[in-house]
Amino acid sequence: MTASSTESRRFAMTVAYDGSGYSGWQIQPGNVTVQEKLEAALLRFSGRDQRIVVHGSGRTDQGVHARGQVAHFDLPARIRISPSDLVRPLNALLPRDIRVMRIRQVNPEFHARKSARGKEYRYMIWDGEIVPPFLRLYRTHVPGGLDVGAMRKAARHLAGKHDFVAFTANPKREVGSTVRDMRKLSVSRRGHEVTIAAEANGFLYKMVRSLAGFLIRVGQGDVTPDEASRILHSLERTQLVPTAPPEGLFLWRVMYESPRRGES
Amino acid sequence: MTASSTESRRFAMTVAYDGSGYSGWQIQPGNVTVQEKLEAALLRFSGRDQRIVVHGSGRTDQGVHARGQVAHFDLPARIRISPSDLVRPLNALLPRDIRVMRIRQVNPEFHARKSARGKEYRYMIWDGEIVPPFLRLYRTHVPGGLDVGAMRKAARHLAGKHDFVAFTANPKREVGSTVRDMRKLSVSRRGHEVTIAAEANGFLYKMVRSLAGFLIRVGQGDVTPDEASRILHSLERTQLVPTAPPEGLFLWRVMYESPRRGES
Repeated sequence: MTASSTESRRFAMTVAYDGSGYSGWQIQPGNVTVQEKLEAALLRFSGRDQRIVVHGSGRTDQGVHARGQVAHFDLPARIRISPSDLVRPLNALLPRDIRVMRIRQVNPEFHARKSARGKEYRYMIWDGEIVPPFLRLYRTHVPGGLDVGAMRKAARHLAGKHDFVAFTANPKREVGSTVRDMRKLSVSRRGHEVTIAAEANGFLYKMVRSLAGFLIRVGQGDVTPDEASRILHSLERTQLVPTAPPEGLFLWRVMYESPRRGES
Repeated sequence: MTASSTESRRFAMTVAYDGSGYSGWQIQPGNVTVQEKLEAALLRFSGRDQRIVVHGSGRTDQGVHARGQVAHFDLPARIRISPSDLVRPLNALLPRDIRVMRIRQVNPEFHARKSARGKEYRYMIWDGEIVPPFLRLYRTHVPGGLDVGAMRKAARHLAGKHDFVAFTANPKREVGSTVRDMRKLSVSRRGHEVTIAAEANGFLYKMVRSLAGFLIRVGQGDVTPDEASRILHSLERTQLVPTAPPEGLFLWRVMYESPRRGES
């Protein structure tokens, strides 16, 4: 326990959600969002009448899912509960498409966004003719088959440290550098399921869906894998880079220093 | 082509559906059902104003899913389309939680229910504390952990040819024999996912959910595996046999003579 624990304690939670029913992560008046549901559950749990802000590692857009979103929040020290005992009551107050998977107490300096050292997203595609009904909300349907070999070739051009401005939906939105270190960009297949896994120190706005949109076009034979390199170095968004739809995208995990700094 | 093809042709389709949004398979006035959706799609496809009856291998109850329901229907011979070319337009006319997986032309004597030689159901349970949001509609949640070894012991008593009247929800509803040949009753685990697979020449009303309800109680340690034998031979439903909820149940496949009698 640190000195600040006399006033409040900070917690980090891992949250999984089905984004199908939400206007994304971030609170917006008039829309139903994941952050809003989490804050409402915390408010009801705490019995306070003052907002408990839930700070996510970053936003997810409308319809995007999360397997391992991380968010932090502070609770007044008077609420004497162990982090693991918080999970069950919060889930009881949340809709079933949002689940708190675990909660840990963290150092007061921990910040879900600022302390993050990297993220992994996965983009999941079904390339068979018919999507099984149980997967319809969780896969992007690309009927007709994808050439995973060509997609892998293109991915090799994109992996590594580059300026990814050609793969963001809105370059003007980016403040600061548009260089990111893509530590991993893999394409794998299991039956009709094609998965793009992207790990980087950070991502630009709609960057994963832009990469997925481009890689799908490569897999369909519309674009050669070598175009990846040309587009990357052009530093300009082109029509060869469509934004793939949200339903295939999962925020898979957020990485922090290990052992997590200040974790108790 | 047989002689009868001058008037109509018979087709068998394999259908997968997410039962969450439906009042089961069978058409009921005032309720949304899977059969109704399939008949509506066929009607719109055929452009006729006369009902095209879709005969399923059997009903599924409200909220129960199917991976491999089989149903037959007749189309006027004037509709000259190959069975495989029927799949795409029907799916385009169906909601995304119902998918026609394949269609074959069959002999006019083929009947989805009467020609069936057996069925396999699977009952899928999540026994971890938290159900991942993407599985919430497709697993029965039994938190606290199940003893799969004990469930297997009980299943061994139940496999084989028996009078299963103690495992039906409504014995009075059964016309004819309540003896069924349970060719397979297995229990397996993969992580927190526990699957009961039941194959028989036929099933009584709510029999799989009764078997699952009983096996869950055994897995929770409330009932000893040997009770299975006693209940079976008592020929009476007891409180030790609750009906497990529908969301974990899947009609997995329907078996016909192989090669399917009359299949063309």
